[in-house]
Amino acid sequence: MTKVHNFSAGPCILPQEVLKKASEAVINFNNLNLSLIEISHRSKDFVEVMDNATSLVKGVLNVPDGYQVVYLGGGASLGFLISAMNFMKQGGKGAYINTGTWANKAIKEAGLLGNVDVIASSKENNFNYIPKSYNVPEDADYLHYTSNNTIFGTQFKSIPETDKMLICDMSSDIFSKPIDVSKFDLIYAGAQKNLGPAGSTLYIIKEESLGLTGRVIPSMLDLQIHIAKESMFNTPPVFPIYVNMLTLEWLKNLGGVEKMGQLNRAKADLLYTEIDRNPLFEGFAKTEDRSDMNVTFNLTDNSHKERFDLLWKAANINGLNGHRSVGGYRASIYNALPIESVQVLVDVMKQLNT
Amino acid sequence: MTKVHNFSAGPCILPQEVLKKASEAVINFNNLNLSLIEISHRSKDFVEVMDNATSLVKGVLNVPDGYQVVYLGGGASLGFLISAMNFMKQGGKGAYINTGTWANKAIKEAGLLGNVDVIASSKENNFNYIPKSYNVPEDADYLHYTSNNTIFGTQFKSIPETDKMLICDMSSDIFSKPIDVSKFDLIYAGAQKNLGPAGSTLYIIKEESLGLTGRVIPSMLDLQIHIAKESMFNTPPVFPIYVNMLTLEWLKNLGGVEKMGQLNRAKADLLYTEIDRNPLFEGFAKTEDRSDMNVTFNLTDNSHKERFDLLWKAANINGLNGHRSVGGYRASIYNALPIESVQVLVDVMKQLNT
Repeated sequence: MTKVHNFSAGPCILPQEVLKKASEAVINFNNLNLSLIEISHRSKDFVEVMDNATSLVKGVLNVPDGYQVVYLGGGASLGFLISAMNFMKQGGKGAYINTGTWANKAIKEAGLLGNVDVIASSKENNFNYIPKSYNVPEDADYLHYTSNNTIFGTQFKSIPETDKMLICDMSSDIFSKPIDVSKFDLIYAGAQKNLGPAGSTLYIIKEESLGLTGRVIPSMLDLQIHIAKESMFNTPPVFPIYVNMLTLEWLKNLGGVEKMGQLNRAKADLLYTEIDRNPLFEGFAKTEDRSDMNVTFNLTDNSHKERFDLLWKAANINGLNGHRSVGGYRASIYNALPIESVQVLVDVMKQLNT
Repeated sequence: MTKVHNFSAGPCILPQEVLKKASEAVINFNNLNLSLIEISHRSKDFVEVMDNATSLVKGVLNVPDGYQVVYLGGGASLGFLISAMNFMKQGGKGAYINTGTWANKAIKEAGLLGNVDVIASSKENNFNYIPKSYNVPEDADYLHYTSNNTIFGTQFKSIPETDKMLICDMSSDIFSKPIDVSKFDLIYAGAQKNLGPAGSTLYIIKEESLGLTGRVIPSMLDLQIHIAKESMFNTPPVFPIYVNMLTLEWLKNLGGVEKMGQLNRAKADLLYTEIDRNPLFEGFAKTEDRSDMNVTFNLTDNSHKERFDLLWKAANINGLNGHRSVGGYRASIYNALPIESVQVLVDVMKQLNT
C-alpha cells in the first residue's frame, strides 16, 4: 500500500500493528474461532480485555490509589454532562475556563444543570491563547478546563492551581506525555485521538469526590454505578475498548508516556521551527501556548494556496485542512504519527519557498 | 477454522461476509490506504457510510414519511433515559408493561424523571408470559414495552393497542421480521443482536411527537438535536455503524425482513418442536408467548445435565447456558444463525434421549 501521511484531527492515525491485530480479532479472536464482536461481553476472554485495558491505564499514567478507571460510550460530549452531573452540587456552581469550541460545549451542558461561572476566556482573540489569570470563586464546586484545544491548536502547559475540585477534558492530549493524576478529581477523554477509535470514552475518577452533589443521577450518567459495575453496567463498546487495549500495549512497549512525550516534543519542534523559519507561513496560536498535538498555521500570502495544496496532496498527505473556525492548516501530530510524516510535510513547506 | 455454532444472547453471531468486510476495512477502507477507524467522520467516505446505514433502515423496515432514523451510542440502557426524557411531559406520566429485566430497567430510569405507572407485569411467574390485559391510563403520555425479552424468552406477538404515544425497546428482535413502524412514536434498539456489534443504538422517531415535554433536555439526550445533526452532533461510533451498514446490506440482499421472518420462524419451529417432543426437555416460556429469537428451556430431570453439557460442547456449540435469573438453557437464534446450527443442537437433544 502507498504510505499515507495521516494528519487527521480525530478520528486519527493509529499504530499499524494495532490495526493489524484489531483486523484479525474481527475474524478470529484469541483463537476461539469466533469474532471479537460476536462473543458475550461477560465471557472470560472479553472480561480479560476490559481488565487489561483498565490496568494499562493505571500503569501507564501511574494512577494513584483511590482512583478508579472506567470506559463508557458517548464521547466527551456525554462527558460534558456526566462531569457536571456528578460534581456540581444541587444549587451549586461550576467554574469553567473557555478555551474554545469544546470548552464552550462543556459550559453549555453544565449550564443546563445549574450555575456556571466562566472565569476566563480567550474568545476575544478567537481562542489563540490560553488564559493565565483567573480566580476560582469560593462557592464553586469545581474548576473545569480543556487541556488541549484541537481546533485552535492551543494547550495548557501546566495544570491550573486551585483548592477546588479539578476536572479536565483531556480528550486530545491524554497519553501524549506524563501527567500528575493526583491533581485531578476527574479526567475524561474521548478515545479517538491517542487511545483508539471513536465510540469509547475514558474516565479516571477520584472515588472519594463522588456522591456529594445531592442530585438524582440517571444510572447511565452515574459514575458510582459504572465504577461498581467495572464498566459493565450495560454492554460496553467491545471493539473500541479492545483497540484501546492494543494501543496502550503498544504505548507501554514503546517506553510509556515519558518516551512518548519526548517523541511528540521532537515532532512539534520540527514543525514549529519550519513555521517560524519559513516566511511563507505563520503560526495561529501564541507561541507559549502552542499545542504539541495540533499545529495550526496559515500562509502569509494566500496566493500560494493553490500550489501548496497541490504539493502536500501530491506528497500523500491527508487531513491537513484547518477547521472552518480558524481556516488555514492544521497538522494533527498525535502519538501514532511518525516523525517521518512530519518531515515530509516540512519538506513540502520548504519546497514551496524555493 | 472449526465451525462454532454460536448461540450467544448478545453480542451475538454476525454474518461471516460482514465480519470479513469489516476486518478488511480496519486495514484499508474504500481503497484509501487508510483504516476506517483512522479517518475523519466528516470525510466523504464515512458520511456515505452513515447515509447508507440510515437509508437501509428506512428501506428495509419501510419507514413512513415523517419518521427519522438516527444512530447514537450508549446502548438501550441510555435509550431508557432518552425515551423518557423526550416523551414524558414535565409532571407527566409514562405507562409501562413489565416483562422482565430490561423492561424493569426502563421503568427505573423513567421513575427518576417523573411518574411511572406499571400497568401490567408478569413478575409473579418469573416473567414466563406476556401480559395481555391492561388499560393505559388517560393521563399517560405514552405506553412503553419491550418487544422481546432475551432473558426469559418471551415475545409480543402483536403490537399493543393504544391511543397514546407508543414506545418500544426493540433491541432483540428488530429486523427479525416485518414491523409496522407507523404504529410507533419511538422505536429504539441496541445494535448488538441483529444489527451489528455493541456500541451503537438505533432510534426510529416520529418527528412530530418530539418537543412536547416542556423539559430542559441535555444535548446528548435530545433526539431533536441528533435528528438536526444527522447522527453527527458528536463523533459517532464509526466502526459499529459501518458494521450495521454491512449487516443491513446482507439482510437486504437475502430478501429483507419478510424472508428473514420466514427463516427465523423455521429455526424456532425446529427447536420448539424438539423441546415439546423430547420428554427430557421442557420450555420455560408459555407456548403462545415464545420468542423466535431466544429459546429458553430446561431439562426435566437435572441428572442429565452433565451429559447434556458434554454433548453440546463436543458439538462445538457456544453460548447455550441460560441466564442466572432463569437457569437451564437459552438458545439465541438471531438472524445470522444458520438453521444448520439449530439442527446440530436438535441432534444433540435427540442423542441425549437415546
